[in-house]
Amino acid sequence: MKIRVDVKLKPGVLDPQGRAVGQALHSLGFAEVGEVRIGKSIEIDIDTTSQEVAVSKGREMAQKLLANLVIESFEVSVIG
Amino acid sequence: MKIRVDVKLKPGVLDPQGRAVGQALHSLGFAEVGEVRIGKSIEIDIDTTSQEVAVSKGREMAQKLLANLVIESFEVSVIG
Repeated sequence: MKIRVDVKLKPGVLDPQGRAVGQALHSLGFAEVGEVRIGKSIEIDIDTTSQEVAVSKGREMAQKLLANLVIESFEVSVIG
Repeated sequence: MKIRVDVKLKPGVLDPQGRAVGQALHSLGFAEVGEVRIGKSIEIDIDTTSQEVAVSKGREMAQKLLANLVIESFEVSVIG
């Protein structure tokens, strides 16, 4: 199975990298751009045939390593 | 409109960050983990009411700034 763990900053947490990208887009002429926020997406091959196991392992990995739950939230989805 | 631009490394391109995360997951006891690859997801507010315009602008931004097309591919989707 292949899962994807999407990690993004919680609402209200400052995102300086996103702001820098937003400013760069403005400089390139994209005047219609508003807020920009940048997250990670982690694709993981897991050796199991059960979607439930894959998602449950993914959540455990996110909680233990992939996400900083103080400032980030995450979602786990099966992609293959 | 809000769009998301997902940027990931093309197949075959080495991903040292993904490999490091994979090794860390193994160290934490996740023996069933295989390949890990890490991408970016960029959420952008765009001041338009047309989905077509939003996606077309998103593609242009990806090509000009957000993705390095030599080693990365991207997908644009409307999320709100």
